[in-house]
Amino acid sequence: MRVLDQRALPEAQIERDLETAEAVADAIRHLVVRGAPLIGIAGAMGLVAGTRDLRSAARETYLARLARLVDILGAARPTAVNLRWALDRMARVATTTPGDGSAIWERLHAEATRIWEEDREMCRRIGEHGLPLIPDGTNVLTHCNTGALATGGIGTALAPIYMAHDAGRKIHVYVDETRPVLQGARLTTWELMHAGVPCTLIPDGAAGALMRQAKVDVVLVGVDRICANGDFANKIGTYTLAVLARHHGVPFYAAGPWSSVDTALADGDLIPIEQRAADEVTTLAGRSIAPAGVAALNYAFDVTPARYVTAYLTDRGLLQPPFTADAPS
Amino acid sequence: MRVLDQRALPEAQIERDLETAEAVADAIRHLVVRGAPLIGIAGAMGLVAGTRDLRSAARETYLARLARLVDILGAARPTAVNLRWALDRMARVATTTPGDGSAIWERLHAEATRIWEEDREMCRRIGEHGLPLIPDGTNVLTHCNTGALATGGIGTALAPIYMAHDAGRKIHVYVDETRPVLQGARLTTWELMHAGVPCTLIPDGAAGALMRQAKVDVVLVGVDRICANGDFANKIGTYTLAVLARHHGVPFYAAGPWSSVDTALADGDLIPIEQRAADEVTTLAGRSIAPAGVAALNYAFDVTPARYVTAYLTDRGLLQPPFTADAPS
Repeated sequence: MRVLDQRALPEAQIERDLETAEAVADAIRHLVVRGAPLIGIAGAMGLVAGTRDLRSAARETYLARLARLVDILGAARPTAVNLRWALDRMARVATTTPGDGSAIWERLHAEATRIWEEDREMCRRIGEHGLPLIPDGTNVLTHCNTGALATGGIGTALAPIYMAHDAGRKIHVYVDETRPVLQGARLTTWELMHAGVPCTLIPDGAAGALMRQAKVDVVLVGVDRICANGDFANKIGTYTLAVLARHHGVPFYAAGPWSSVDTALADGDLIPIEQRAADEVTTLAGRSIAPAGVAALNYAFDVTPARYVTAYLTDRGLLQPPFTADAPS
Repeated sequence: MRVLDQRALPEAQIERDLETAEAVADAIRHLVVRGAPLIGIAGAMGLVAGTRDLRSAARETYLARLARLVDILGAARPTAVNLRWALDRMARVATTTPGDGSAIWERLHAEATRIWEEDREMCRRIGEHGLPLIPDGTNVLTHCNTGALATGGIGTALAPIYMAHDAGRKIHVYVDETRPVLQGARLTTWELMHAGVPCTLIPDGAAGALMRQAKVDVVLVGVDRICANGDFANKIGTYTLAVLARHHGVPFYAAGPWSSVDTALADGDLIPIEQRAADEVTTLAGRSIAPAGVAALNYAFDVTPARYVTAYLTDRGLLQPPFTADAPS
């Protein structure tokens, strides 16, 4: 399994071969691989890579090892519902496939490939459903990276942007740099520039000033996890944008695959918020940007209540909560 | 004139000797010296340093050179009203002082010292007037650097924090890192830690999440320039905090010396907003964090309308607009 090391972008394009499930888990944990949908694909492929050597094993041996790897991969990003979803799907397929290691592995290999293909199709559908939100002349504000680098396809929140651009519409994207990990500065600008979509990088704190000047027509962000009532978790800073958008009357859309919806979670208070290491805030590339020993708070995500969201842009359409398992498909 | 190079903090404490007015102007332009009040002091001292060699000059020669230096220093930070104020005050003193270069220089030297002393006293008064805003147990959120490193004394927005801490109150300060130049991460945490004030560094985008969790009791920010109607300019990101504070019912105070009030400016639409070089946004601590050639927007300041401000914390008390030249003194 070969991945582009997203930590090195935009300075270097480094590809890494991940031969084991543990290596995939490490890559997820250290943001070599990131983006909710891509993490799901990586998790599924991690199970395939991690059980390749057990193709000649007996059924029970194979399934026992698989269960261990599901646990290891699932623990790499506890808030990533797509990862959990993909791992559960793979585990279910494994237990319902008859035969020994070889048969199950072949079936899992096909299933992981299908997850990837479905993801590409999911992105395309999000783009189609979102296309009417981005007429000619639109200035979009986005946060973090929700594009081709985060998915198996053209992205989630960026999908309608790519499709609007491909349709010949003149659009422009303001990109929040997205501290502390700078996914906006490093990744979103990189992929938008590669695609020829005009974009401007801004410090996260500048979003308010831009909206006050009416320079933002629509805010499009991704999602990490959506609750049944519509509350959703996404990269730290998303909630600040939601408040700013509401305050300035700017439409605010949360874009993600239906698989990001966790109908078992009633509301956002139930979402566990991952705290990451303080040194993501206090250092950059090994250089300190704050005094030694300073305390720093590094929430990976924040929760945006449903009332701030104009609509949810999913592969099943532009939806409104509450979300139940029998949503439109 | 010796200054601490604030660009090198917190990694190194480098002192620089500025021998000419041009060197002082460069230091102001490149943020070696920053903070509205300190820039005013530096401007005044720059005139003293820059005319030291003209002490034996004739009156007209001295005054002509002084006028040139006033222009050079004033252009270093066009939005800094304290700088303009200090330079005008020095120029006025010069023209009303009889005698030749020597007499005028001695008088300007005394005036620059007086400006510094007044600044120390101004900080102390802001601290006293602000002390009731920070009772025991308060969690303050601040932005940029408005402390001892920005003034000739204990700061503006940080002054009441220092005084509350000295009074034995248990307080805690959340410090916005303040991209792009990171004055919060580099300077505010440095001086608060030196003073023993508990503080936590956060990415700018995290302020909303903290307020939603009711972890912020009061927002205290500095000012670059206050208009007659109360609209004020301050470091980019301030307006975002103002909107968040309003939305969450958190009191929001703008702290600065009365000399930051420009009663000649009716409202914030008249404030020219300095745009700084894009590479402040596209690099972090000297390392590129975005693709080569990316467009970036780098407003140095934003404007916060008066209606977001609970009160203005000045050396003349806790005030409400409109501001006129005959405000309480």
